[in-house]
Amino acid sequence: VNLTLAEFLALPEAAQVPLIGDQAVLYASQFTRSQIDHLCAVADAARRLHRSHDGAAWLGSRVPHRMALNFFAQPSTRTFMSFNTAQAVLGLERVSVRDIGRSSMSKGESLVDSIRTYVSYVDTIVMRHPDEHAAGTAFWTASRAHRRLRVGGREVPVPVISGGSGSKHHPTQALLDVYTLSRALGSLDGRTLLLVGDLARGRTVRSLAQLARVYDDVTLLFAAPERYQMLPDITGQLDRAGVRWEVVPTLEAGLPHADAVYMTRIQDEWDGAKAGGHEAAHPDFRFERRHLDALRDHAVLLHPLPKRDEIDPAIDDLDDPRVGYWSQERNGVWMRVALLAWLFGVDKAILHPLQT
Amino acid sequence: VNLTLAEFLALPEAAQVPLIGDQAVLYASQFTRSQIDHLCAVADAARRLHRSHDGAAWLGSRVPHRMALNFFAQPSTRTFMSFNTAQAVLGLERVSVRDIGRSSMSKGESLVDSIRTYVSYVDTIVMRHPDEHAAGTAFWTASRAHRRLRVGGREVPVPVISGGSGSKHHPTQALLDVYTLSRALGSLDGRTLLLVGDLARGRTVRSLAQLARVYDDVTLLFAAPERYQMLPDITGQLDRAGVRWEVVPTLEAGLPHADAVYMTRIQDEWDGAKAGGHEAAHPDFRFERRHLDALRDHAVLLHPLPKRDEIDPAIDDLDDPRVGYWSQERNGVWMRVALLAWLFGVDKAILHPLQT
Amino acid sequence: VNLTLAEFLALPEAAQVPLIGDQAVLYASQFTRSQIDHLCAVADAARRLHRSHDGAAWLGSRVPHRMALNFFAQPSTRTFMSFNTAQAVLGLERVSVRDIGRSSMSKGESLVDSIRTYVSYVDTIVMRHPDEHAAGTAFWTASRAHRRLRVGGREVPVPVISGGSGSKHHPTQALLDVYTLSRALGSLDGRTLLLVGDLARGRTVRSLAQLARVYDDVTLLFAAPERYQMLPDITGQLDRAGVRWEVVPTLEAGLPHADAVYMTRIQDEWDGAKAGGHEAAHPDFRFERRHLDALRDHAVLLHPLPKRDEIDPAIDDLDDPRVGYWSQERNGVWMRVALLAWLFGVDKAILHPLQT
Repeated sequence: VNLTLAEFLALPEAAQVPLIGDQAVLYASQFTRSQIDHLCAVADAARRLHRSHDGAAWLGSRVPHRMALNFFAQPSTRTFMSFNTAQAVLGLERVSVRDIGRSSMSKGESLVDSIRTYVSYVDTIVMRHPDEHAAGTAFWTASRAHRRLRVGGREVPVPVISGGSGSKHHPTQALLDVYTLSRALGSLDGRTLLLVGDLARGRTVRSLAQLARVYDDVTLLFAAPERYQMLPDITGQLDRAGVRWEVVPTLEAGLPHADAVYMTRIQDEWDGAKAGGHEAAHPDFRFERRHLDALRDHAVLLHPLPKRDEIDPAIDDLDDPRVGYWSQERNGVWMRVALLAWLFGVDKAILHPLQT
Repeated sequence: VNLTLAEFLALPEAAQVPLIGDQAVLYASQFTRSQIDHLCAVADAARRLHRSHDGAAWLGSRVPHRMALNFFAQPSTRTFMSFNTAQAVLGLERVSVRDIGRSSMSKGESLVDSIRTYVSYVDTIVMRHPDEHAAGTAFWTASRAHRRLRVGGREVPVPVISGGSGSKHHPTQALLDVYTLSRALGSLDGRTLLLVGDLARGRTVRSLAQLARVYDDVTLLFAAPERYQMLPDITGQLDRAGVRWEVVPTLEAGLPHADAVYMTRIQDEWDGAKAGGHEAAHPDFRFERRHLDALRDHAVLLHPLPKRDEIDPAIDDLDDPRVGYWSQERNGVWMRVALLAWLFGVDKAILHPLQT
Repeated sequence: VNLTLAEFLALPEAAQVPLIGDQAVLYASQFTRSQIDHLCAVADAARRLHRSHDGAAWLGSRVPHRMALNFFAQPSTRTFMSFNTAQAVLGLERVSVRDIGRSSMSKGESLVDSIRTYVSYVDTIVMRHPDEHAAGTAFWTASRAHRRLRVGGREVPVPVISGGSGSKHHPTQALLDVYTLSRALGSLDGRTLLLVGDLARGRTVRSLAQLARVYDDVTLLFAAPERYQMLPDITGQLDRAGVRWEVVPTLEAGLPHADAVYMTRIQDEWDGAKAGGHEAAHPDFRFERRHLDALRDHAVLLHPLPKRDEIDPAIDDLDDPRVGYWSQERNGVWMRVALLAWLFGVDKAILHPLQT
């Protein structure tokens, strides 16, 4: 397939997916159920191996002499640090570009040329960018670039991983979310997830909703102020995939039915520059301390973080085992280890370390 | 002890110290004489080991597969680079957060939540922060967080090290200062230290003065413009600890008595935004070239650096062996190696490498 | 030789060169033909070694337990990332200073004191700075500083490498350019190079022109708008060295004679703050797609990058083997490996790895 960049970007997501193969991580939708189960198993295996000194040393020599670029054109703490730690776990060296003003883009370089340049120097690119086409542009550019890596006996392009692209996609967050849900609930099959907050612009919650299709018999409940409700592009996908979804008027209305509550923050950074201050969460969509009484015993409370006032901060002082968002962060390290291992062809070795 | 954050922060420093134990470095006052002597010995041992290829390789595998966060919310070159090198010496991987605007704090995250997040991804936090409660907040948060490290057979919180907290504390600088003084003078016992410059807001000189109590028969001379004189909180501590101190009218007045002269810069960054320019040092508290004639032969001239005009720059071209501030910088690397080794339980191995 | 900084900086370049020796990389003019051929051979050897797992591991243990500082006071992507990867290839740890506002210079520290400080913490300094005397200042300061490294049985100062100094010098770029030309053309002897664009302020093209003198029978053609023509300091050097050069009125006029075309961008960052926008390339000095027809079959099209509109972006989609600027980037990694290897005394081991 020899498409121009414009032609590739004009393709619908579903038509891009087969072109991506195992060369990049751009969309939650590119992963099948068996791939996701495999990645979760690799994440678990890496976590266990890392506990012992010898296991950590073995993991740390899986991808040596490789350089990862963490290119974050938007603020990030969690995704940046999580990838950074995951790369270190596998023995990748790391460099970052976080300030466009200090890079050659300030001299008028195009994104395509910047990616071509990165490909000259590094062996994988993790990128967060406000432009929703940025990660796709990077994948297409890397796949046609001059430099190839030798990975598992094949010549492959420098792999690109989206760490958040525009307001639409955050695939590695979605994968760490289902990894967290699997660990907390055993399986997602047959579960009801209550998604709360800014569903319109929360790329994490959008990507998570997209993953529901791979599980059997999942129900999604959407609780959001009307202007922040889940958009038709996602509900359409859910309808086509036969995933049950329902709008509930408040967090409280959905709470008794939920196996997991997934809170999100009002993404007001997309509202443009404002004179200070952040938009407060609507009272109907805040998780208060009293809501813990209505939360089912086996259920889990998640949040992609950072949070503001949409979860009562007093909840963090209670040591309630259903509060899962801090473990969710740590799970992100292991899921990203799994994704990097997959792209660099060492995932199977991590699953079966004794056989290598 | 199960205090809330507010309760912990409301405790006086002396009541916080027993709660800190060997889990954090927050105050110079937390260290006893024997601990300081031990840290100086570890610093010396690490320095010696690092000279040989094999010794450096052995040191560099003491704390492998661990990630250090250098979180500097204020400008820093020395402390940042010094910790960075110290971490590399011990084999720690490193990541930094230096620009709040590019982190999740720009999305309204609280410091407590930021620390909880860091604890998910890294294995130690070195932090510099303008808020004098920041390091204590980080220690308290880490000590109650979900994630524990296995260090020397114990489960411990992620250790926090203050790299400068508000205008009050800079404990690792104080430790490297006494390490430098010990190397230059043999011992601090019975010595007279002349402290010059901005004693009110110089957190380095304040922390150093606090350490005087652990030595026998130390005399402190304070030479400063009246508005920058040592504050009563420190002189009160000195009085209670029985440390002799005296105000001298000028640098020159104290010079003939000093075994060490500790110069400091006017800390005008605490004066708020000013339209360009820096406050000049008062002539009575500048170290001029002619002062070298009055400086005792065995004495040492120190400065926490950066310096401006409070030391005549021509002095740097003289190769006078009493000019100690450049070695003082390098000593900081080894003292920080010692502190990290202590927190990660490898200090004794470094002192006695043949026995491991 | 015991010169003050002012005396050293007042020396002409040719008089500075013998003082630099093998302790720093400041000027393209400091390298002889045989040194350049040697560096190109080391670069080739490192590139070959890095292809195998064992070779990469061997390379990665050449300069262990050393810390490199990448001090970039001006925006850079290529030079920064290229040095970063080169350092990692040889096993150097890395730290960077890229924002003066977050360093101690914001507290009024002089450049000399900053360099003295860096020398306390790191084992080599790569620096880019707008002041054309900055790299020389750093070399002089490091050469007189308190700290020495043990390299190959000698005590040497911390080596300084210019990564671009003022508008005048960019020696490592010039070396990677002749390395690229050598790989593309076999040898530079007898070749004609067409240099196009901003020859007045392009430090890469100026440094490249300076290197022409070491080759036999090279001809330089200069194609530039009059205000951006090559300055007399360089043409004077060429005249004295007996290098043929000629001004051609347009790119097109020089094209049929060229073995290599070296395009450059209008360096409008030196024009001071402008209200948005970049100066467009003059049509007579843009490389259009049609120019590929006139470009000789064996010739190569280079650019130090980043590029803007001076090369038609459509050219990048053609996979024309004469388009050499992307390989030129990757060549920079290997030339910088060679330079670091030379400064740390491991260049000969890389050339003859079996003998070590």
